[in-house]
Amino acid sequence: MSETPALLRSDAPLLSPDALEARLRAIGEERYHNLHPFHRLLHGGQLDRGQVQAWALNRYYYQASIPRKDATLLARLPTTELRREWRRRLIDHDGSGDAPGGVERWLALTEGLGLDRDYVVSLAGLLPATRFAVDAYVHFVRDRSVLEAVASSLTEMFSPSIISQRVSGMLRSYPFVTAETLAYFTPRLTQAPVDVAFALSYVKEHARTREQQEAVMAALRFKCDLLWAQLDALHFAYVAPRLPPPGAFVPEPT
Amino acid sequence: MSETPALLRSDAPLLSPDALEARLRAIGEERYHNLHPFHRLLHGGQLDRGQVQAWALNRYYYQASIPRKDATLLARLPTTELRREWRRRLIDHDGSGDAPGGVERWLALTEGLGLDRDYVVSLAGLLPATRFAVDAYVHFVRDRSVLEAVASSLTEMFSPSIISQRVSGMLRSYPFVTAETLAYFTPRLTQAPVDVAFALSYVKEHARTREQQEAVMAALRFKCDLLWAQLDALHFAYVAPRLPPPGAFVPEPT
Repeated sequence: MSETPALLRSDAPLLSPDALEARLRAIGEERYHNLHPFHRLLHGGQLDRGQVQAWALNRYYYQASIPRKDATLLARLPTTELRREWRRRLIDHDGSGDAPGGVERWLALTEGLGLDRDYVVSLAGLLPATRFAVDAYVHFVRDRSVLEAVASSLTEMFSPSIISQRVSGMLRSYPFVTAETLAYFTPRLTQAPVDVAFALSYVKEHARTREQQEAVMAALRFKCDLLWAQLDALHFAYVAPRLPPPGAFVPEPT
Repeated sequence: MSETPALLRSDAPLLSPDALEARLRAIGEERYHNLHPFHRLLHGGQLDRGQVQAWALNRYYYQASIPRKDATLLARLPTTELRREWRRRLIDHDGSGDAPGGVERWLALTEGLGLDRDYVVSLAGLLPATRFAVDAYVHFVRDRSVLEAVASSLTEMFSPSIISQRVSGMLRSYPFVTAETLAYFTPRLTQAPVDVAFALSYVKEHARTREQQEAVMAALRFKCDLLWAQLDALHFAYVAPRLPPPGAFVPEPT
């Protein structure tokens, strides 16, 4: 169904904007990374401190690359209105004045988990698969249509639920996790819906042919895939079969 | 040692060309994917037909992207001499006249394993992690210095040994693998050393500062990492814990 490649669908009828939104939500129900076994382990308290550190360390590269991704898209937006809209995301992630942004708040999370800040920022222990997946996102936003680039942000439609699961689950489960450590997530609960409201209405308005609608769905599947691939790599390296690649972070034995 | 980031090594002395080559060979001994457990299983006959199909299907995207990578670098080479040298790689992989190239020979391999040619070429069942790792290679060759781009090809220094292991091991172990199926590899045994002879001498001649030598070593580590990451993804999806991501190839039960 939603897996049929666009090229086979060129004769398919145009979807109504609401039918397109329903298709997009269905992609999340099928592919969003809250369904990944690693997330179940993370939220269910079944990981040890080193495994949670590995998650936070690798996720840092994703967080730190989001403003790089948004600046890349910002540079391609044609109007003041669109750029002002998208600029808000840069402020959310890079901060403003004394207010720290999401990247800084993520470093508070990694420090709260006992990781050295300079080590995290150096990316020395990053899983190569994390780098490849995250860089693929930045390249996608640079190389694809603006419509596809905006659509690739729509995984935020699904993030508030995963964030509330994650925060409550991690606070309940891990003695080494505090509310301060997870402070990153609190603003996201209000920021993500604002971002989604714009991006979703943009996509519903600007996907005017079935081909464009298929490209929008493919962009969201691509984004789900790269989030999923990051958890595959973490699971493989740190849970089962537990084989960190050469040079990657190795947790201290607990 | 060879893991220390370049920025910490800027005060280190220049290596002799032969000392640089020794460092590069040491990187292969530490990081080349012949050391990956998936390769041991593949060559040792411990995979079933579906698992070998998954390897060939995903490896197809790597093979099909090599001439894309080489054309990207070719477009950046400044002299006729360099372009003629690198052009040979395009002929090796894309073929010439009636002589099939490596990409076509790889499709003979996937067909010999019982995979539908159109399905393989469509990339519909590809692991997203394979796409991210392979595309990272093409982007690296486009975005980094020509010296780093040439250096990233040097994993071919290590390939003749793995190819002979693979061919003999797979022929011995798998009733569903024939010499014709593995015909891809035969020309590589002679092509790779010719490629290496040029690329290695180029790197040894043009890495004239320690910083450039560190960049060359980092480029080879990057290449080893992306080969390794492809096997991590195969192992995770098809061996253990055996969780193919949504939409990826699922072997028929045997």
